[in-house]
Amino acid sequence: MLDSRILGELAAIVGADNVLTEKQDMLCYSYDATQMEFLPSAVVHPANAQEVSAVLKLANREGFPVFPRGAGSGFSGGALPKAGGIVLVTTRMNRILRIDTENLIAEVEPGVVTELFQQEVEKLGLFYPPDPASLKFSTLGGNVAENAGGPRAVKYGCTKDFVMGLEVVLPSGAIIRTGGETYKGVVGYDLTKLLCGSEGTLGIITRIIFKLLPYPDAKKTMLTIFDSIDGAAKAVSAIIGGKIIPTTLEFMDYATLQCVERRFNLGIPPEGRAVLLIEVDGDRDLIEKQAGQIHAIIKPLGLVQFRAAENAVESEQLWKVRRLVSPSLRDINPDKTNEDIVVPRSKVPDVIRRIEAIQQKYDVPIVNFGHAGDGNIHVNVMIDKQIPGMPERAEGAVKEIFQAALDLGGTMSGEHGVGLSKAPYIELELSPDQIGAMKAVKHALDPNNILNPGKMFPGGEGTHAAG
Amino acid sequence: MLDSRILGELAAIVGADNVLTEKQDMLCYSYDATQMEFLPSAVVHPANAQEVSAVLKLANREGFPVFPRGAGSGFSGGALPKAGGIVLVTTRMNRILRIDTENLIAEVEPGVVTELFQQEVEKLGLFYPPDPASLKFSTLGGNVAENAGGPRAVKYGCTKDFVMGLEVVLPSGAIIRTGGETYKGVVGYDLTKLLCGSEGTLGIITRIIFKLLPYPDAKKTMLTIFDSIDGAAKAVSAIIGGKIIPTTLEFMDYATLQCVERRFNLGIPPEGRAVLLIEVDGDRDLIEKQAGQIHAIIKPLGLVQFRAAENAVESEQLWKVRRLVSPSLRDINPDKTNEDIVVPRSKVPDVIRRIEAIQQKYDVPIVNFGHAGDGNIHVNVMIDKQIPGMPERAEGAVKEIFQAALDLGGTMSGEHGVGLSKAPYIELELSPDQIGAMKAVKHALDPNNILNPGKMFPGGEGTHAAG
Repeated sequence: MLDSRILGELAAIVGADNVLTEKQDMLCYSYDATQMEFLPSAVVHPANAQEVSAVLKLANREGFPVFPRGAGSGFSGGALPKAGGIVLVTTRMNRILRIDTENLIAEVEPGVVTELFQQEVEKLGLFYPPDPASLKFSTLGGNVAENAGGPRAVKYGCTKDFVMGLEVVLPSGAIIRTGGETYKGVVGYDLTKLLCGSEGTLGIITRIIFKLLPYPDAKKTMLTIFDSIDGAAKAVSAIIGGKIIPTTLEFMDYATLQCVERRFNLGIPPEGRAVLLIEVDGDRDLIEKQAGQIHAIIKPLGLVQFRAAENAVESEQLWKVRRLVSPSLRDINPDKTNEDIVVPRSKVPDVIRRIEAIQQKYDVPIVNFGHAGDGNIHVNVMIDKQIPGMPERAEGAVKEIFQAALDLGGTMSGEHGVGLSKAPYIELELSPDQIGAMKAVKHALDPNNILNPGKMFPGGEGTHAAG
Repeated sequence: MLDSRILGELAAIVGADNVLTEKQDMLCYSYDATQMEFLPSAVVHPANAQEVSAVLKLANREGFPVFPRGAGSGFSGGALPKAGGIVLVTTRMNRILRIDTENLIAEVEPGVVTELFQQEVEKLGLFYPPDPASLKFSTLGGNVAENAGGPRAVKYGCTKDFVMGLEVVLPSGAIIRTGGETYKGVVGYDLTKLLCGSEGTLGIITRIIFKLLPYPDAKKTMLTIFDSIDGAAKAVSAIIGGKIIPTTLEFMDYATLQCVERRFNLGIPPEGRAVLLIEVDGDRDLIEKQAGQIHAIIKPLGLVQFRAAENAVESEQLWKVRRLVSPSLRDINPDKTNEDIVVPRSKVPDVIRRIEAIQQKYDVPIVNFGHAGDGNIHVNVMIDKQIPGMPERAEGAVKEIFQAALDLGGTMSGEHGVGLSKAPYIELELSPDQIGAMKAVKHALDPNNILNPGKMFPGGEGTHAAG
């Protein structure tokens, strides 16, 4: 617990109305999209970088940890105050400061909700592609801190690829700018990209300069169903080998399909074993041509059904299969562990086969769907926590799933991050020297280890020299 | 000077044939594309990461500095051994290890020459877009260390945007992998991007995993001449505003044009004040359509001439104007200072006007050309070092040019880096807290300051805590 003197200082910094200390007020800042829960000692809502800076200086002086938080929609516990201390919420900093249509950049505060930002830039004919599933409530600051992805990443890249510059409050309280508003810039180290995906452990983002694109002329959605996983996976490589990089290449396995079909009866043919939901965007004539090319390319690969939307209404209809996945899953079991491994694109069938074997071994239902274009598979282990032994079996399965991804040249996480939930596994993926170098960077910027301690690296961080 | 015991140890690590200590052998490792020159104490040519590691461990133990070097084609002195010590040359590590056509990635050693790599991937129908002017001799390792750009960056990005993973020898001698071969990955800090553009101060790159693209179907080159700088600059914004992102948007000002025309007589109309060399690539039908759209968009902007190439031969003909710039410049004066400022795209006319005023003030000829699409202008101050006072006037002009770029929201360098030549100016661009954070990162990874000391930050680096 923080004593009343410190709480008084916090109130002096952010205003008494922006400090919460009552349990009922703090509850909704104690959890995220994982099933973990940790109550903070206090919650503060600063209005700007100067207030964030003052909070961090106080934290250094008094030795309490600070946990930055956007909307709390993370899937790895990255915003949870495990070690106690204060949660610093960025949602009051929620202004879109400017959208520059001539230079195709925008400057925003971190608390802006992703979808709202997309809508504003689209009104001006511009495009901000990153589309994490949480976009209706997640904040741009959180997206940057976690390097959020989404279906469109296969063509456009992840959040990091759109961040040109930041204003950041370092753990010391120093307010710095990184990067800038030019497309190129090589003066000094790239602290911008270092901050992206650092999960709130190296600094608190208070402004973001994003790169934007012209909004694509048109898009075309295709629902394609294959008689095998291998066919669908080969289709992905064949399409890209055919010089077409679709906006999205969303994949669903048989278990996922069955789940959706059982609940919603969408008329998926019984011989369908895997779905690819393909979307291309760009010039109106070109995408029609590409849709034809895609059909020709994938036809020999065990194609069972090919449906191409002729308009926006039909496109929404086709996307339904994908959007209904989440609401269907809980028919299998009430609880799920949602992992997001990545393998090189060509290894998708191998990893699916490995997961099938893991499912048999641990006797837990697993459904796979996700972003086949970049090899990013959401692996959902569906369990019922009330069934004795099942959570432990799921844990064993998850560890083997991570190992399978790593064996195939992949990574444990493409979008969700490490946070608390994957910290115990990080040594599966990173060598002691890699972790040593990362901890050295953390310690250099946060010698008192006050910013989001205990995240990413197991057993705290920031105490070792370079590996 | 290194004593014979240390030289003996170096010979034991890399082989006696791969250690140079005679002045005549070391001369060609004492300079780069700047006009600076520093003779090292020895030059070593390691064959692999293990040898690089052993050299760095020895350097830490004995306290001598190590200066990594690719082809030495840099424009900022980044590879020069100013403080004495050894130059470590990466050119023996010159294998293309694999090109994976299914996952569109390649793994290479750092000493591979950029153009050679491009040719090899193009044979397989793939595309590695970064195209620094030095590509015929520069190495990929150097390109990564400097985050090299080039004309195609406006559409495709710089070298960094194609680096997915690295093998790096840290200053301590630890060999680590960063990133990987998946398009997504959020486990741990992004050391890959931190290393890109760190100018050989944080680690020595021994392997690179690059992302590749399908080779574009076709390209179309257009030479467009305007009656004013403003017209050309407006054309850039109007084309991109028209939802076309060309592969290149190369710009030449009136002084450049005059220079080329005087020497080569290409038939540039006398009322031409600025050139844009525009290239689009992609689908064959689409680029023809885009060429028509571009013509319509730029016609009202003071267009004096529009020539579109119908084939590769004509395209080469149009590129001639751009390629003849460098050989023409020395007609003005024998020596040049080549800077590469960047401003937001819409600020190109403003910065050109500021540079015209600076030219008047300091009475030195200045020609401007470069990559208008991303606001990256190569500013060439043409001087004769023999004329008393002229070098000093040029120095004054350069400092004001940097300040002009910064005043307009830009940066001192988009491609060349800081190295030695811009280190004295870095405080114009970065705040003490920014520099403090960068030095803290440097010190964390290189506590003995043995790797490329004296680069980037004025007066050495690595001695301060975080800002």
